[in-house]
Amino acid sequence: MTPPKTSESGNNHLARNESRLRVRYAETDQMGVVYHSNHFVWFEVGRVELLRQLGFSYRDMEQIDDRFIAVVDARCRYRAPARYDDEIIVRTHLKNVRESVIHFGYELVRVGDGLLLAEGETTHIVTNAKMEIAALPDKYMKVFLSAIGRDVI
Amino acid sequence: MTPPKTSESGNNHLARNESRLRVRYAETDQMGVVYHSNHFVWFEVGRVELLRQLGFSYRDMEQIDDRFIAVVDARCRYRAPARYDDEIIVRTHLKNVRESVIHFGYELVRVGDGLLLAEGETTHIVTNAKMEIAALPDKYMKVFLSAIGRDVI
Amino acid sequence: MTPPKTSESGNNHLARNESRLRVRYAETDQMGVVYHSNHFVWFEVGRVELLRQLGFSYRDMEQIDDRFIAVVDARCRYRAPARYDDEIIVRTHLKNVRESVIHFGYELVRVGDGLLLAEGETTHIVTNAKMEIAALPDKYMKVFLSAIGRDVI
Amino acid sequence: MTPPKTSESGNNHLARNESRLRVRYAETDQMGVVYHSNHFVWFEVGRVELLRQLGFSYRDMEQIDDRFIAVVDARCRYRAPARYDDEIIVRTHLKNVRESVIHFGYELVRVGDGLLLAEGETTHIVTNAKMEIAALPDKYMKVFLSAIGRDVI
Repeated sequence: MTPPKTSESGNNHLARNESRLRVRYAETDQMGVVYHSNHFVWFEVGRVELLRQLGFSYRDMEQIDDRFIAVVDARCRYRAPARYDDEIIVRTHLKNVRESVIHFGYELVRVGDGLLLAEGETTHIVTNAKMEIAALPDKYMKVFLSAIGRDVI
Repeated sequence: MTPPKTSESGNNHLARNESRLRVRYAETDQMGVVYHSNHFVWFEVGRVELLRQLGFSYRDMEQIDDRFIAVVDARCRYRAPARYDDEIIVRTHLKNVRESVIHFGYELVRVGDGLLLAEGETTHIVTNAKMEIAALPDKYMKVFLSAIGRDVI
Repeated sequence: MTPPKTSESGNNHLARNESRLRVRYAETDQMGVVYHSNHFVWFEVGRVELLRQLGFSYRDMEQIDDRFIAVVDARCRYRAPARYDDEIIVRTHLKNVRESVIHFGYELVRVGDGLLLAEGETTHIVTNAKMEIAALPDKYMKVFLSAIGRDVI
Repeated sequence: MTPPKTSESGNNHLARNESRLRVRYAETDQMGVVYHSNHFVWFEVGRVELLRQLGFSYRDMEQIDDRFIAVVDARCRYRAPARYDDEIIVRTHLKNVRESVIHFGYELVRVGDGLLLAEGETTHIVTNAKMEIAALPDKYMKVFLSAIGRDVI
């Protein structure tokens, strides 16, 4: 087995997205900070924007191509509390892609002082609407591989 | 037009349900009380349990009978704050039903002292999966009408 | 009792804010549309941005001025379903203000075709951190009254 | 350093709790299954009930003892989709406790067929209301250690 070819001249910058959001009051809890399940919702905001940056709409992926990316593993390490009205940068990174598995990494950073609030990863399998594992269509695969600097799976 | 016949010997008690839930930490906000949008989620919990009490599963209503009850109007008046770990009684009341419109009323009451926390109403239209207005199937309509002490729409 | 003086040369445009948001996957439900309690979260997004436009931070209002605006009544009429990935304009309007009561109105409009998705209102009372009714400090009251074209409460 | 003494005659059964909940419509997404951030909310439901089983109210822990258990790491592995109206058992397990760190494990199981829906872990640090790390008070520590079959930290 040979290692995957890497292409330094690839579109590696495309594999990273920065999106902004502002903490909503509904996202806080009585400890006065953001409740910890919301970080996973923010990861999803970043994931969708990374797809958009790669030229894809996740809405179309579901409706037109009958492909869903279902979460099979999600993790978050909380470094500092996020607070109401904070502006947050969601840094999303396409870490790896295989035929039916996609792996994303995330950092949540506070605008202003750049404080790292949390880091996380999610792993997804590609399915059809019946939740059966399915291959990622070629048009996505090519762009995803290029973005992470690879030519082949 | 004659007024609808009412039947004192109807199943009126079936038109009222009491369900219990406990306030989750995720439902609080930094004011130290339950964030106000959660009350509508609790109303839905009561609505589903009232349907179950009437012999229906809302899951089956969607999956087997292709009927959805979409919210067209929702209102809540907040009387006292609900707090973390409070046990809450959701009192749901089938107020009225017409061919494609259903009207529910709600009270949220704190277990223990019976304090009224909130009151509300929701109005729903019956649709199919394409969100087109559709008639409520007979088997539901008969039971709903009986529950509110009426024989006909 | 004389009617409140109105000032045509007031800052009436300040009483209206338009904010944008994009529907999150987490906000949808299995009917394929946005779950109806999320509209109230979006109303809050608009409310906070309207305050910011008037020169105030709701965060500071709580932390520095010990004033909270607690919801006592909330209503939404749903005109058309909001869907995943839709861009939504939240139009917020300061409808009225009295010593300890503030009234906001809202419209949710879909970007692109301008379709009205929902309309609503919320009524708030001003409290301190102990949830006791409290007067809105002068610096807020002056700006709020000016925004709605009035000189006095 | 000697290994912690273990006590086979401890209260080990107390370290495991089973709580039930029913999937709410608000917790589903347009894929027709429960949105993945909700599993962390359910973990919290189990955590609180495990504390209650050990004789503690997390509400009192915050209000009377000024101790909070803030999440620093949370992970979930999704085995099968949870669906609307499913009854779910949340199995919570106190895995370990040190001076200011508590570690819980979870399983989500579908009532009826016992299908494992998800597994997870959360790690928490004990803080005061100012979010400064603080020791877990003795009354908690004794019970927690006993529950996991240990005499000393």
